[in-house]
Amino acid sequence: MGVPPDPASGLTALLPEGAVLTDPDVLAAHSRDHASTCPAGVPACLVRARTTEQVSAVLRYAHEHRIPVVPQGARTGLSGGANAVDGAILLSLERMTAILGIDEENQIATVEPGVVNADFSRAVAGKGLFYPPDPASWEMSTLGGNVATNAGGLCCVKYGVTADWIRGLEVVLADGRVLRTGRPTAKGVAGYDLTRLFVGSEGTLGVVTKIVTALRPAAGAPQTAIAFFGDIGSACATVTDVMTGRLRPSMLELIDPIGLAEVSRERDYGFPPGTDTVLIAQSDSSAENTAVLGGFTAAAERNGGQALVADGPEEGKLFLAARRSVGLVLEKRGAMLSDDVCVPRTRLRELVAGVGELSRKFDVRIACTGHAGDGNMHPAIVFDAADPDETRRANEAFEAVMALGLDLGGTITGEHGVGALKANWLERELGPVGLDVHRSVKTTFDPRSILNPGKVLTRF
Amino acid sequence: MGVPPDPASGLTALLPEGAVLTDPDVLAAHSRDHASTCPAGVPACLVRARTTEQVSAVLRYAHEHRIPVVPQGARTGLSGGANAVDGAILLSLERMTAILGIDEENQIATVEPGVVNADFSRAVAGKGLFYPPDPASWEMSTLGGNVATNAGGLCCVKYGVTADWIRGLEVVLADGRVLRTGRPTAKGVAGYDLTRLFVGSEGTLGVVTKIVTALRPAAGAPQTAIAFFGDIGSACATVTDVMTGRLRPSMLELIDPIGLAEVSRERDYGFPPGTDTVLIAQSDSSAENTAVLGGFTAAAERNGGQALVADGPEEGKLFLAARRSVGLVLEKRGAMLSDDVCVPRTRLRELVAGVGELSRKFDVRIACTGHAGDGNMHPAIVFDAADPDETRRANEAFEAVMALGLDLGGTITGEHGVGALKANWLERELGPVGLDVHRSVKTTFDPRSILNPGKVLTRF
Repeated sequence: MGVPPDPASGLTALLPEGAVLTDPDVLAAHSRDHASTCPAGVPACLVRARTTEQVSAVLRYAHEHRIPVVPQGARTGLSGGANAVDGAILLSLERMTAILGIDEENQIATVEPGVVNADFSRAVAGKGLFYPPDPASWEMSTLGGNVATNAGGLCCVKYGVTADWIRGLEVVLADGRVLRTGRPTAKGVAGYDLTRLFVGSEGTLGVVTKIVTALRPAAGAPQTAIAFFGDIGSACATVTDVMTGRLRPSMLELIDPIGLAEVSRERDYGFPPGTDTVLIAQSDSSAENTAVLGGFTAAAERNGGQALVADGPEEGKLFLAARRSVGLVLEKRGAMLSDDVCVPRTRLRELVAGVGELSRKFDVRIACTGHAGDGNMHPAIVFDAADPDETRRANEAFEAVMALGLDLGGTITGEHGVGALKANWLERELGPVGLDVHRSVKTTFDPRSILNPGKVLTRF
Repeated sequence: MGVPPDPASGLTALLPEGAVLTDPDVLAAHSRDHASTCPAGVPACLVRARTTEQVSAVLRYAHEHRIPVVPQGARTGLSGGANAVDGAILLSLERMTAILGIDEENQIATVEPGVVNADFSRAVAGKGLFYPPDPASWEMSTLGGNVATNAGGLCCVKYGVTADWIRGLEVVLADGRVLRTGRPTAKGVAGYDLTRLFVGSEGTLGVVTKIVTALRPAAGAPQTAIAFFGDIGSACATVTDVMTGRLRPSMLELIDPIGLAEVSRERDYGFPPGTDTVLIAQSDSSAENTAVLGGFTAAAERNGGQALVADGPEEGKLFLAARRSVGLVLEKRGAMLSDDVCVPRTRLRELVAGVGELSRKFDVRIACTGHAGDGNMHPAIVFDAADPDETRRANEAFEAVMALGLDLGGTITGEHGVGALKANWLERELGPVGLDVHRSVKTTFDPRSILNPGKVLTRF
């Protein structure tokens, strides 16, 4: 059984008018996510699904005809997980945007996968509730995409990742059957935890069509503090001191010397002379802010830094502006490979120092900012894509950063996902037995290998 | 290929002296857990494993010869999950009791599965750390058993269940291969979440031989409050008010009218006249205790109850004694079927009222105490096992309680597990697609159906 010449016609007959698109410009615009250096194929068509039944119809058809399907949300991913493969049906969930219910008393909500994180966060905030997961893309990325990649963010250090806030899912399986996982209750151990299996599986095991999230009461307005260090080791020691304390900041971010030099070239943030590394902390609990930020500034000073607490929300935003601008500033400098290693917190110093060495070894700029409280850093390799030798060195440095993360007892991806970008590296992290088990699970859920092929696993 | 006549001899040749036991008294003593009414088979032998390699040798042998293997910890489970099946190898992990490491700075620990929860909790407490999961069996049950059943407890209402504290596992697969899942880092999305798939799988997918747990800084000494109500509806309304507030108690337990009558027959707790239902709350954060317990007593009074905060740890223990004694008192009355339904918190009132109706309908006593803050109740059906008609009615009531839980949008098991006791009921909760997927997962991990057969799934 070969691939039929035109899945678009087959699907057009099954779906409402306008749901199947083949315009080459539209397809090109939907063929890749934000992983700019990751290859993408040429898809056969784009389907904009509006209902579970339509998703089911697409998968039944694709399963029958063995056509690859690439599920997509807002394509803000950073690992090529939503990138097209040749001949694929791009299955967009972006039009499934209903917030189906917010249950204030049980503190749960049911949403469709195309709901944008920020829209949802604002809707629950309007009811005095809080959905914590806050990936940097939250103004654009969809909850379905957040679930597919198990997205993290700034507030993970206090509130955990997306998976920690998902109670249950509706998932269309590869053959079009509709599975419901989990339950709306606070606890439950009836059967295997399929919810967690789908969260973070990057569209390779099924397509999520409904999401039941947990919520919590609204947090307080965040208060911010900043600390300046003359060396990165003192900053890392401060991170350990803060994180082993009883009170948890709602954010704990680090800017390394290279990142700091880059942002300081754009704007004078007024950092004290001799500042080499910066930590920024927030607390969002009015009862604890004084204790949390007091603990942070005391730890910074004990480790030789200078620290101050913002005297209001405006100054707090300014402290955070430097951290937020690193990515934008680097993007101006050239092409960028964004890495995402996560190490045990106590190895943070070795990670940042090691990245600095790799920067020198491969002669490319690597800024190493990130979620220091979780040991999850985003070494960003900036290079001139027009220079083949520099591009080669950048790619080698990108791989060397992952090797360093693994050597330090960490992982190749803390929150961005494996996608197409790191599928070759997953084998190294999992080892042969782990990889075999992954392949078995993939084959169990997707026996014809139609779901997002080439992502997460290269072969199965 | 038939079952060889004597797995004990085969295994004796592979394992150290004394590891394989066949004494009928020893086997009988190891043939069942605490689910007293659940049937158990006659095993072929008991293996006391001390190393991963020994577990691997047992499973390789069992896989080759297609012999059922029943993994066991301390056999304190309540669903027959550790009960023998005919001809099985009972594979005890109780002798794997090493705490392999407590990493204070990264707040993680690595332990063997036979470590008793209380021993581990005390070991980490000695370092100023805290492992929250606290099933009622914590003085006896092992961490391996806690992982196998995804054990809950009193403090879930604030700290979550066992799964929330497991970072990674070493698991021996059905064919003897050794798999490592997860990672020691705070975050990580490389590959599928196999850790969560094994947690709560009750020994049907693999045998856990090492556990990496997360830890947190020690909590404060708990402070306790109690509230007395003239009707259960007011108590349930108080639960909703407390749980939708910003501050979370570390415990929120309910004693229903039948349970209250039973414990009051044994001892006068001095509850005010007209008390029908009792709530007991704790808080374990010195910074928040006043606010949490103040919120609790205010909510109770707003809903027509009377409330008081214990004036010290001794009075706090007394408040809790009534709750803790319910089970012991009921066990004196006769045989007991302990149920474990969990419903959305707002359905708690209907659950408790419905259980009262079932008690009348089936003419059996059913006390309905439990973890009200999570909507997870333990209706306990007391009956005379020597009376066949009462036994029949008790069993019917047991099933009717699960049906009620499902009708209220809940689950048949909040924390005890499916085991052998509820395997027939799992199908009803999962539905046909969910059941099919469960069977596929089971077959993927255990193609010869040797791992704890008849538990969780009846057929696969």
